[in-house]
Amino acid sequence: MKIGLLTSGGDCQALNAAMRGVVKGLSETVDKLEVYGFEEGYKGLIYGNYRLLTSVDFSGILTKGGTILGSSRQPFKMMRIPDANGLDKVEAMKSNYHKLNLDCLVILGGNGTQKTANLLREEGLNIIHLPKTIDNDIYGTDMTFGFYSAVNIACEAIDCIHTTAASHNRVFIVEVMGHKVGWLTLYAGIASGADIILLPEIPYDNDKIIDAIQKRKKQGKGFTILAVAEGAISKEDAALSKKELKKKRENEPHPSVSYRIAEMITQRTGSEARVTVPGHTHRGGSPCPYDRVLCTRLGSAAAKAIVDGKFGNMVAIINGETKLVPLEKVAGKLKMVDPGCKLIKEAKRTGISFGD
Amino acid sequence: MKIGLLTSGGDCQALNAAMRGVVKGLSETVDKLEVYGFEEGYKGLIYGNYRLLTSVDFSGILTKGGTILGSSRQPFKMMRIPDANGLDKVEAMKSNYHKLNLDCLVILGGNGTQKTANLLREEGLNIIHLPKTIDNDIYGTDMTFGFYSAVNIACEAIDCIHTTAASHNRVFIVEVMGHKVGWLTLYAGIASGADIILLPEIPYDNDKIIDAIQKRKKQGKGFTILAVAEGAISKEDAALSKKELKKKRENEPHPSVSYRIAEMITQRTGSEARVTVPGHTHRGGSPCPYDRVLCTRLGSAAAKAIVDGKFGNMVAIINGETKLVPLEKVAGKLKMVDPGCKLIKEAKRTGISFGD
Amino acid sequence: MKIGLLTSGGDCQALNAAMRGVVKGLSETVDKLEVYGFEEGYKGLIYGNYRLLTSVDFSGILTKGGTILGSSRQPFKMMRIPDANGLDKVEAMKSNYHKLNLDCLVILGGNGTQKTANLLREEGLNIIHLPKTIDNDIYGTDMTFGFYSAVNIACEAIDCIHTTAASHNRVFIVEVMGHKVGWLTLYAGIASGADIILLPEIPYDNDKIIDAIQKRKKQGKGFTILAVAEGAISKEDAALSKKELKKKRENEPHPSVSYRIAEMITQRTGSEARVTVPGHTHRGGSPCPYDRVLCTRLGSAAAKAIVDGKFGNMVAIINGETKLVPLEKVAGKLKMVDPGCKLIKEAKRTGISFGD
Amino acid sequence: MKIGLLTSGGDCQALNAAMRGVVKGLSETVDKLEVYGFEEGYKGLIYGNYRLLTSVDFSGILTKGGTILGSSRQPFKMMRIPDANGLDKVEAMKSNYHKLNLDCLVILGGNGTQKTANLLREEGLNIIHLPKTIDNDIYGTDMTFGFYSAVNIACEAIDCIHTTAASHNRVFIVEVMGHKVGWLTLYAGIASGADIILLPEIPYDNDKIIDAIQKRKKQGKGFTILAVAEGAISKEDAALSKKELKKKRENEPHPSVSYRIAEMITQRTGSEARVTVPGHTHRGGSPCPYDRVLCTRLGSAAAKAIVDGKFGNMVAIINGETKLVPLEKVAGKLKMVDPGCKLIKEAKRTGISFGD
Repeated sequence: MKIGLLTSGGDCQALNAAMRGVVKGLSETVDKLEVYGFEEGYKGLIYGNYRLLTSVDFSGILTKGGTILGSSRQPFKMMRIPDANGLDKVEAMKSNYHKLNLDCLVILGGNGTQKTANLLREEGLNIIHLPKTIDNDIYGTDMTFGFYSAVNIACEAIDCIHTTAASHNRVFIVEVMGHKVGWLTLYAGIASGADIILLPEIPYDNDKIIDAIQKRKKQGKGFTILAVAEGAISKEDAALSKKELKKKRENEPHPSVSYRIAEMITQRTGSEARVTVPGHTHRGGSPCPYDRVLCTRLGSAAAKAIVDGKFGNMVAIINGETKLVPLEKVAGKLKMVDPGCKLIKEAKRTGISFGD
Repeated sequence: MKIGLLTSGGDCQALNAAMRGVVKGLSETVDKLEVYGFEEGYKGLIYGNYRLLTSVDFSGILTKGGTILGSSRQPFKMMRIPDANGLDKVEAMKSNYHKLNLDCLVILGGNGTQKTANLLREEGLNIIHLPKTIDNDIYGTDMTFGFYSAVNIACEAIDCIHTTAASHNRVFIVEVMGHKVGWLTLYAGIASGADIILLPEIPYDNDKIIDAIQKRKKQGKGFTILAVAEGAISKEDAALSKKELKKKRENEPHPSVSYRIAEMITQRTGSEARVTVPGHTHRGGSPCPYDRVLCTRLGSAAAKAIVDGKFGNMVAIINGETKLVPLEKVAGKLKMVDPGCKLIKEAKRTGISFGD
Repeated sequence: MKIGLLTSGGDCQALNAAMRGVVKGLSETVDKLEVYGFEEGYKGLIYGNYRLLTSVDFSGILTKGGTILGSSRQPFKMMRIPDANGLDKVEAMKSNYHKLNLDCLVILGGNGTQKTANLLREEGLNIIHLPKTIDNDIYGTDMTFGFYSAVNIACEAIDCIHTTAASHNRVFIVEVMGHKVGWLTLYAGIASGADIILLPEIPYDNDKIIDAIQKRKKQGKGFTILAVAEGAISKEDAALSKKELKKKRENEPHPSVSYRIAEMITQRTGSEARVTVPGHTHRGGSPCPYDRVLCTRLGSAAAKAIVDGKFGNMVAIINGETKLVPLEKVAGKLKMVDPGCKLIKEAKRTGISFGD
Repeated sequence: MKIGLLTSGGDCQALNAAMRGVVKGLSETVDKLEVYGFEEGYKGLIYGNYRLLTSVDFSGILTKGGTILGSSRQPFKMMRIPDANGLDKVEAMKSNYHKLNLDCLVILGGNGTQKTANLLREEGLNIIHLPKTIDNDIYGTDMTFGFYSAVNIACEAIDCIHTTAASHNRVFIVEVMGHKVGWLTLYAGIASGADIILLPEIPYDNDKIIDAIQKRKKQGKGFTILAVAEGAISKEDAALSKKELKKKRENEPHPSVSYRIAEMITQRTGSEARVTVPGHTHRGGSPCPYDRVLCTRLGSAAAKAIVDGKFGNMVAIINGETKLVPLEKVAGKLKMVDPGCKLIKEAKRTGISFGD
């Protein structure tokens, strides 16, 4: 059996653990296994950059962050349009798949990656997709790998900020990754005891933020911590058209929402609000045990799907069990935080403000 | 509103986080809230040792391990039997509950605790139970709090052992807490890349353990790591009656299964197997973000249940949502690892041996 | 005996551990000990905000980040100048010291704090100073507390960046706290395997940065990590007068040196350089074991100094031993990184570029 | 230039970091560098098991625990005595050194390893020794690498025990590695707030242990934590001859000192004392930043010594600076904790009991 592996999009913590799961899962059942690793995501498939991987490559990588194959943001927009050199990328990928005579291509990536995976499925390739992203925004699975590792890192940062905020009676804003969806900010915020959590899915009202800070002061709590998603947006801005918003942003001194909120708080409360941007640290380091178990399961289930010939699926985790979900049913969809969900209600009941 | 809180049984990491969730959840909705904390579990309720808790007590405890109330193994066997001083413990508990005029008693604990909670419910007290245990063996909830924090700590220990085992080509046994159920060993074992995992639910065969070690050697892997639950049992021993087993144990040099297995491996392979017993470290330290989110949710849902007057329930987490589960339906039942479940199959497919 | 405690300036990780050391050290030898804690640094001493502390306050705080007393940047510039209300701050501090009839005031803080401590000594107060700062820039001691805890946190962030940088073949800049001195960046940079380390003490040359990146590319290493101190400065800027520099900064789009360097790298190499600013996380969280041992020692030695009546000193650690160092000899001096020191030479020999 | 590398004795956390330092330090200055890695310590040198290492082998290993070369306890006792096959091990080592035409052999190890390194020096080989051990017991250097990483891990374990001990008002004993010297127990004990610390260098008195526990109870502290070195010894046992002691041990139910002390405490106080043995976890996992900096320095200084032809030395760290120390002056000596040293006095002043 010959399989290909590729990791595409922003990296995260348990990519290696997932690939190890796939290969270990196949090694035990398949006699002659050849594993080809494409380098730097779809690029490697397009340009034929790959290497033959042996069991040594998968030894000791359960705990290793990043991806041994490298990754790159995928050139998905230009997919079927020949590039400057006349290269049709989709044809190039199909050609390299067939040249290697692959039985299956296992693709690890997020939403964009999944769309291309579905495209390759439509083109007749045998595809298995594993749902990777720190954003947990992939439709059709309860959980993506990378998410809980990122929650841990974001939470550690806010834990650190907690002691310094409390010592100085300061307002602190910690910016958490997530342009379109707020799962990471939501979980890291609750886990670290943030007082105000701002998500892309729940546009905020400046007055409500100030109210929450003042309420804490009245309760004798001099500090307030805000966990703010990169994509958090004010109610006024949410009401604008894309064009109007773009124009407005161009004229603002701070491109980042955290700094705009900090300035607003400083102006309205008189006390300086500080901003921390842990940024790419969220996706780095060793995967947490939760993700290691998840990836061993997803990888093992992917191996079974390959042996069973059940291609064209994402391996999901639903209600604690691995499931195969047809790519055609999920590709292109986003799993967002529902502002009226039980989790938000539970968080609000404990006094957390979402600025709405 | 007057509520009581008590934490009973072996402590774990997110007891404080859960109590904070309950109290924060009530503070936001209830006007006059009085919270009484009983000291050292049911003991405090029996002997009337309690203190009035204020918001200061719940400030900054989200991340604090242990329990601010103290805990003790409960004297459940003697429950309705008067003790040496003629004290009827159940009557004493009821009496103290009524003296304080409590609207509800929130009880945090594991299986034994839950049974007593159900007994008090039968006696007419308003009870809410929160499922606490590093063992994850409470029937009726997908997850207990403390479990993932314990997985992290056990996993860290095995991670440490990994580098030294690999450097010295040694066989290492890490004993993980769990006398009756193996969830903790199973998750920590998979997460840390253990090669052999022995659980109480799957009696092991010495030959299979030796086979697994030899197989690794043939693959060029000089070291092997075993994650062994305290309650792991050999096939022969599992076939004995309780009485026979007790007698056998009395004549064995090593009371702990890990040391018996180590000796067996040393004798049969000629190379020394080392044992590590992290023991009570599993239940200590700061709760992990997973448990902090879980406890904030369970606590908040408990607060809602209290306000809604829905007593006699455990607050569970099922398929990612908090649910109220009647105590009468779950008390006395144990959630064990099913040897034929998907998770075990997935782990086996990646080459992990369970000794069966 | 009556002593006062205050923590001043930016908080850091082992302030509580140090205060615990002082109080435990005195409790064992002094019969009637009264400890007064001034709130929010010198502010508390000026305005008479203090509270009597008991042994309960010092229980369990060895591992607790921040300061139980609160802290604030000190108003040192206005020290002897009456404020708007006619308050002479130095007189106010002396007055409150004498009102409480203190035998000694233990002051925990950095360079600015130390200067004021020395001023109070000159005014006749019994002062002991403990060297606190994540910057390790206090003259007269080999090590300050907070430093190694901050190194650990900064290093963890760069470790996280490492896996993502390697997966994407990117240039990453991690900004580390330190406006005037580079100890923290130097240690965190070496510890995390940074390829380029830029310190305030060693002005950098853009060409040398580009050279280092290109050299790595030639060696087949697609990624480069820069650890950059907040106060890192280019050779051209270092040659400017303060006035010229201020003017130049005002016209620059990026106030932070990291973003300026990132832009330069992006322009000159064609590949985007990313910036991460962990910022205040450096000073937060639980102190590392190194700092806990150091603070227990410094606190205990401070207790001995107080009992022996040896006032007017900083308790330093020199060649592994605690020493009393007269404040008058060290106040106002800064301990900077010597560009020609052995440590820098050792780091350079392993291939680390300092941009010079 | 041709150099050899070997790691001998029990592994620890920063062996790879130190080897990376040596090789990086040479790569930058030496034109044609060949590095031979001997496998499993002196065994590899004796039996000629080695492999040529390239820069890829040293990439990414700064943070990797264990040793990429493997290690083994050295067969030092039989050094000059031919084994069963008539092999003279010293001659075999010399022969392999000369066959490869090595310019220098860099040996990383502890006290036993150092003695053999000195022997090889006497035999005319060019030797550089790097002081590796979690015990910090190597004479002639202030610090050994591995020590602070082990302190961190031991301290984490005791931190975990702290929360559970406090919740249950229990006496807990944590056994820390160290048969002959107590540095690791001393630092981990102070750092984690242990109440009683027992070291091999300070024989303990059972009465003093009980006194310390009772004193805490009187202060309202129901729990006590003991950090006990593997080699801790009672005053009575310390007075026995080796032969008498051996005989006594054979008749004791518990081979480990921790269990003997636990039993004594249980008998004399009536409340059960629990034991935890983290064991080999101490030497595992990723090195801490302190050790990474230390090893980069030691490795770089070793590289300089090699280039300068200064063989026959251990690279030490003394008063914060790397120094070359002649092997002949230090081999065979042990650095123990002086019971009268300042650090012990400082610890005692804060109320820590050493059982004496």
